[in-house]
Amino acid sequence: MKVLILPGDGIGPEIVAQAKKVLTVLKNDGLDLELQEAPLGGAAYDQYGSPYPEFTQKLAREADAILLGAVGGPQYDTLDRPLRPERGLLAIRKDLNLFANLRPAILYPELANASTLKPEVVSGLDILIVRELTGDIYFGQPRGIRVNEAGEREGFNTMLYAESEIRRIGHVAFQAAQKRGKKLCSVDKANVLETTEFWKEIMTDMAKEYPDVELSHMLVDNAAMQLVKAPKQFDVIVTGNIFGDILSDEASMLTGSIGMLPSASLDANNKGLYEPSHGSAPDIAGKDIANPLATILSVAMMLRYTFNNEAAALRVENAVKKVLAQGLRTGDIFEAGTTRVSCSAMGDAVVAAL
Amino acid sequence: MKVLILPGDGIGPEIVAQAKKVLTVLKNDGLDLELQEAPLGGAAYDQYGSPYPEFTQKLAREADAILLGAVGGPQYDTLDRPLRPERGLLAIRKDLNLFANLRPAILYPELANASTLKPEVVSGLDILIVRELTGDIYFGQPRGIRVNEAGEREGFNTMLYAESEIRRIGHVAFQAAQKRGKKLCSVDKANVLETTEFWKEIMTDMAKEYPDVELSHMLVDNAAMQLVKAPKQFDVIVTGNIFGDILSDEASMLTGSIGMLPSASLDANNKGLYEPSHGSAPDIAGKDIANPLATILSVAMMLRYTFNNEAAALRVENAVKKVLAQGLRTGDIFEAGTTRVSCSAMGDAVVAAL
Ligand SMILES: CC(C)[C@H](C(=O)O)[C@@H](O)C(=O)O
Ligand SMILES: CC(C)[C@H](C(=O)O)[C@@H](O)C(=O)O
Repeated sequence: MKVLILPGDGIGPEIVAQAKKVLTVLKNDGLDLELQEAPLGGAAYDQYGSPYPEFTQKLAREADAILLGAVGGPQYDTLDRPLRPERGLLAIRKDLNLFANLRPAILYPELANASTLKPEVVSGLDILIVRELTGDIYFGQPRGIRVNEAGEREGFNTMLYAESEIRRIGHVAFQAAQKRGKKLCSVDKANVLETTEFWKEIMTDMAKEYPDVELSHMLVDNAAMQLVKAPKQFDVIVTGNIFGDILSDEASMLTGSIGMLPSASLDANNKGLYEPSHGSAPDIAGKDIANPLATILSVAMMLRYTFNNEAAALRVENAVKKVLAQGLRTGDIFEAGTTRVSCSAMGDAVVAAL
Repeated sequence: MKVLILPGDGIGPEIVAQAKKVLTVLKNDGLDLELQEAPLGGAAYDQYGSPYPEFTQKLAREADAILLGAVGGPQYDTLDRPLRPERGLLAIRKDLNLFANLRPAILYPELANASTLKPEVVSGLDILIVRELTGDIYFGQPRGIRVNEAGEREGFNTMLYAESEIRRIGHVAFQAAQKRGKKLCSVDKANVLETTEFWKEIMTDMAKEYPDVELSHMLVDNAAMQLVKAPKQFDVIVTGNIFGDILSDEASMLTGSIGMLPSASLDANNKGLYEPSHGSAPDIAGKDIANPLATILSVAMMLRYTFNNEAAALRVENAVKKVLAQGLRTGDIFEAGTTRVSCSAMGDAVVAAL
């Protein structure tokens, strides 16, 4: 199995270094792994003049799975749009057809205090957001900034979903719900947007193929409210790219510990790109204080979804639970009565717990 | 001053009836008011076969201000799209050019427990969301459901903002910030969408005209997180129609008492449509248990923005604060130790407090 590692920018290299320690343990224990490394985002621009250079593209296409740290940093903000780090991320998603973005929002009992929500509202929270990742207004054409007939400048973009795009993410979501609480909530704005009216129609039609899953529909504005009001009402949420971008970030923040949340972006054959849900945090980069657990938990997702190795996935997840139970905390999740550790010390602790 | 009352559907008529009591007191005390009434939404469809019939349109165009209850109900869900209640709402906004939607999210100290967020996170919360209301993907053309070149069905919509549309909502937002904490946060997805890259450029340019206001920019996904993490960092937020729809609902739910939150939708001359931020709640309609305070507070916004009568606005707001201090609560905000009252009793209490 070929795993490509993309450290990226900001805290990317330091958190990925801890995940590499975990992968190395698994390899030494007999897992068939070949590790390679390439730049993405700002680091790739610095080295190759492009955020997703051919060098990286070739290795990414050959890999079975990819582990990404994070991309982006203020030094790249003034670059031309096509050269910016996040363009590298959008390009690799599209190039590899990684249409299914799985973003769990889980509250670890040990970290319940980290949430800004009352404990009774979020304790035991375990939501999975299934976000479509290669369509919608992110990639729709036409788009741009033009001068209109009245001689005025205007910006425009196109929201767009074809039936097959909706069906393939629908299947991922229904099947994820089958393996969990068997409840799927499809989020749309069908009262205003035809694109999502169509989305709702297709999801409703697909429900016949999954009689064991209870499908419901919710408007996106209401979903943004319900996540704050009663987040535990949700099991699996499925939605388009832009609504999923907003709602998955909102949901992850309900836990108060976004430094703990991994994500997976899969193609139709379970090839995947795995990355923490948080960003590149340039303000704390290079200080060895970032939380590597979301990246390590992304390795667990890789073992589960791409390698189909549930035992190894659980082994990594249990090691993370163990270090939490030991009271070890990086700065972002530290509270009185626990032990503050560095990024690398946290990585070492997980390795020890493995 | 001509005030048109649109009771609408669901709990609309009962909550509007309480607001009418307040308007009647003000009229008896010398305020120059002429009240008229017309249907909108489902009620208008029932009577005239259209959710925004000519009868209503004529009176709406003549009015100085409009008070709306709420529209929508399950009995209208199977109607053709152009006949549905929310189409009436979208039509009146567009017809009257009500481009500036002001949605305050305020936490009343007496209702601090109603929030699902920890008290220290939300106590004293006072955010104003300025949402553009007549542009964006809500009204952009082309739109629809079509068969594409590959012979497949697809849904599509157009996000669109012209420079003049951005400038006019920008002025409203900068001026609102000048009258408040002098902080304005413009929310976009400029790293992906050209429409909002353009939006950000125009807002940045406008900041020169308002040197006393501190302008910042935030990505919409981050804004959805920051509202949960640290909502008190915000003073005024300005954003487009669809992001504003999502974020203003999220923000209002932070207070836990959406039954308390009014809204205003203004044109360029401060003609306005005023309505509660909540919906038509068909499940409790006709039971005289709905909370009329958001509608009554919408009257206060009308007095402030359209009638430019700050004294009368404060009189209404103080009456609402007084009934809260007296411990009177409708079911949605009831808690042990307070007195549960009906919708009409709450209206009478506000009248007494006036
Ligand atoms: C960096 C940005 C382009 C990206 C997105 O909007 O998809 C990010 O917010 C995410 O959710 O992975
Ligand atoms: C009913 C619906 C069309 C409307 C909107 O999306 O604008 C509502 O959600 C609102 O925010 O007033």
